[in-house]
Amino acid sequence: MASIVLLTAKQTAQTRAKRCLGPRLKGLADTGGPSGTFLPGKEWLSSGFSLRFMSHGASGRSAAGATSTGALAFSGAAAVTAAVAAAVVGFLANSNHFQRAEMATKIPGHAKKKTEKEDEGSIAERCRGFMSVPVTDISVLERRKDEMSTRMEMLIMETQADFCKALEKVDGGTFKVDKWERKEGGGGISCVMQDGKVFEKAGVNVSVVSGYLTEEAAKQMRSRGKVLKGKDGKLPFCAMGVSSVIHPKNPHIPTVHFNYRYFEIEEEDGSKQWWFGGGTDLTPVYIDKEDAFHFHNTLKEACDKHHPKYYADFKKWCDRYFYVRHRGETRGIGGIFFDDLDAPDREEVFDFVKSCARTVVPCYLPIVKKHLNDSFTQEEKDWQQVRRGRYVEFNLVYDRGVKFGLATPGSRIESILMSLPLTARWEYMHEPAKGSREAEMLEALRNPKEWV
Amino acid sequence: MASIVLLTAKQTAQTRAKRCLGPRLKGLADTGGPSGTFLPGKEWLSSGFSLRFMSHGASGRSAAGATSTGALAFSGAAAVTAAVAAAVVGFLANSNHFQRAEMATKIPGHAKKKTEKEDEGSIAERCRGFMSVPVTDISVLERRKDEMSTRMEMLIMETQADFCKALEKVDGGTFKVDKWERKEGGGGISCVMQDGKVFEKAGVNVSVVSGYLTEEAAKQMRSRGKVLKGKDGKLPFCAMGVSSVIHPKNPHIPTVHFNYRYFEIEEEDGSKQWWFGGGTDLTPVYIDKEDAFHFHNTLKEACDKHHPKYYADFKKWCDRYFYVRHRGETRGIGGIFFDDLDAPDREEVFDFVKSCARTVVPCYLPIVKKHLNDSFTQEEKDWQQVRRGRYVEFNLVYDRGVKFGLATPGSRIESILMSLPLTARWEYMHEPAKGSREAEMLEALRNPKEWV
Repeated sequence: MASIVLLTAKQTAQTRAKRCLGPRLKGLADTGGPSGTFLPGKEWLSSGFSLRFMSHGASGRSAAGATSTGALAFSGAAAVTAAVAAAVVGFLANSNHFQRAEMATKIPGHAKKKTEKEDEGSIAERCRGFMSVPVTDISVLERRKDEMSTRMEMLIMETQADFCKALEKVDGGTFKVDKWERKEGGGGISCVMQDGKVFEKAGVNVSVVSGYLTEEAAKQMRSRGKVLKGKDGKLPFCAMGVSSVIHPKNPHIPTVHFNYRYFEIEEEDGSKQWWFGGGTDLTPVYIDKEDAFHFHNTLKEACDKHHPKYYADFKKWCDRYFYVRHRGETRGIGGIFFDDLDAPDREEVFDFVKSCARTVVPCYLPIVKKHLNDSFTQEEKDWQQVRRGRYVEFNLVYDRGVKFGLATPGSRIESILMSLPLTARWEYMHEPAKGSREAEMLEALRNPKEWV
Repeated sequence: MASIVLLTAKQTAQTRAKRCLGPRLKGLADTGGPSGTFLPGKEWLSSGFSLRFMSHGASGRSAAGATSTGALAFSGAAAVTAAVAAAVVGFLANSNHFQRAEMATKIPGHAKKKTEKEDEGSIAERCRGFMSVPVTDISVLERRKDEMSTRMEMLIMETQADFCKALEKVDGGTFKVDKWERKEGGGGISCVMQDGKVFEKAGVNVSVVSGYLTEEAAKQMRSRGKVLKGKDGKLPFCAMGVSSVIHPKNPHIPTVHFNYRYFEIEEEDGSKQWWFGGGTDLTPVYIDKEDAFHFHNTLKEACDKHHPKYYADFKKWCDRYFYVRHRGETRGIGGIFFDDLDAPDREEVFDFVKSCARTVVPCYLPIVKKHLNDSFTQEEKDWQQVRRGRYVEFNLVYDRGVKFGLATPGSRIESILMSLPLTARWEYMHEPAKGSREAEMLEALRNPKEWV
């Protein structure tokens, strides 16, 4: 299937790529022009960005019968694309778990192919169901409704709305909605519910940003062995994503996190790099095998519709990414995590991302409802608080999106840090008693399991 | 005075330097030998280590009339010595606030000069008052009692004991004492009191480590423009320090932190680099000008005995170091912070560090006692918890000692993270009301004040 798509895709890519970025950037220039702020901090750029890379991209491609067009840039582009992604993640307040790795294949031509009738109703009608008007003007979205940037923006807005509404229904509370703008271009919509009946802190964030990579950023990339040529030294990009972290009050209801994102960068010759990233993962306080099975199996079913290796590979990637190295523990019991997905073609990957995004509610809400009225002890609450501390450790110490966001002037800090729990605890030398349910939890974090 | 000391110092430095490291390293080799684990992680090393450097070192030296021997290496050695220090800080579990900067002047000869009768009683007698037997065998300390490494180890043990006892007296609780060993050489003593009557979490940690820098680490340095030649490619070092963070329960009692440390590294020709670092700083939840004056003035008096510029310069350095960049706030109201202090000579600097270490109790305890019975509201407690969240942010995101410690395999994580509060809180979009005491606190953090 993939090879067929690839052939189709090559026909119109170049022109379409130009169309996608062109108007957006023109619009940007109209409202004050591009700024020179996309330079990733030197500290971050040169930090080695030690990548835990999954071999999936290559194997997935060959398994799907794709040509090696994409695979060529596979190993060489690591630092370059990491830098590009880093530049973005700082403005993508929602990219909490960004891991831009080696792929970011430069494929000069991939066109959109509508595989299903994804959009019921007009853009304007669909927007009515969102938590806020979108970041991009509805008239602009209407005009460019077939472009990937529009389709993805609609998907992330829809995902935000569906999830927020499902959570509001179960909690009885209401999300506080903040629409914010980024002066260099784009903005976001942060939805936060704090101290609800069920949820201690629930955040669902959308951001849509665009602009240029500076010459300095491009130079940083060149020093990494990869030349990205921009028009007059500037590399236009656009990036968007939806991200969420939900911390419930009851220690028997797990924390969930998900993030789905899309990135485009245009070179001088009009060719573009684009890729998708994302994932959904669960962080319980106690092991409930039935919950773990449900969560992972729901993700697996979504993955299996698109590629037989996706679940296994992205499950492994997730366990590797959400690893609190200094503790020797994963953050939770995982789920899926992927980045740099740019094969077999954009339409296929978008379909996959759409399946994942639409799986968030069925993954999580049944678990919430199941434990809604579970009673708990102070000891169980304390253990939850200790686990929350570890969550904070991961997010502040390892999470690349958070790290880069914090290091980037102009980031919306409140959106970046909304992933932190309302409360957390650090006990010196905390060690659960042998045979306890707390020890069982730790064991699963120290030795990631297969849940399906 | 400094120039006189310098002349005296040059006489015996070379031989004494050898004596200081020799026996320790021999002892190490006897118990399993040096290991090759002192390589700072590439990520950390190449991270730019963006230094906020204070010009004090140079000005201090010239003001004191020292020769320019030390100043020569002043600007060039930054990354090199940062790397060296980084290698150490990973094992110095207590170096929570390590900022190794540009100085680390290579001075081929500085000898110890006893300026006062610092040690009342024998080593063995003094050890009886400590929280634990020291890391180094008492017999070894007796044998090398005039060496700086011994004198510093005695000072940090004494500081730990004095402070712990003062805190126990006011709290009524008892410190849990953990003596731990590091298999590559050295170890530490962690004293922690958790959930006491007055203190939510109080940690006072000593560590004393020694070993070799690997060839790889040395190579990393060379790439930074500075060649450090070791015997057979190995650079012996020893490092030690005392570090403490105290988080009280009552929001009207501030958090305090201090850290004093010493470092030596020996090159092939037997010449050594050595330096001291340290500081004491206060993090209140509410501004109490009287407390702030007392704290800063006590530090100023200690500084003034040694150099008229020390307080002003190290106060500024402190404000710069404890800066939570993404919040645009300092962590607290500061105090003093310095690093790389290697002039005018070792004896003088040690005397200064001793004055600082002995000032910890008089800086802090009067403030604790003053607020012991202050009543507080739930709102005040919540604000304290929000400030604790910021403390966690600084420690996990910026603190170089913590960052490097976490990234270094074999670090004692519990000692590194004992600086984190027992409890913390993150509220989305928290902003104190105008004119409130919370707003007054924030204002002081956003615009550091002169308190004396």
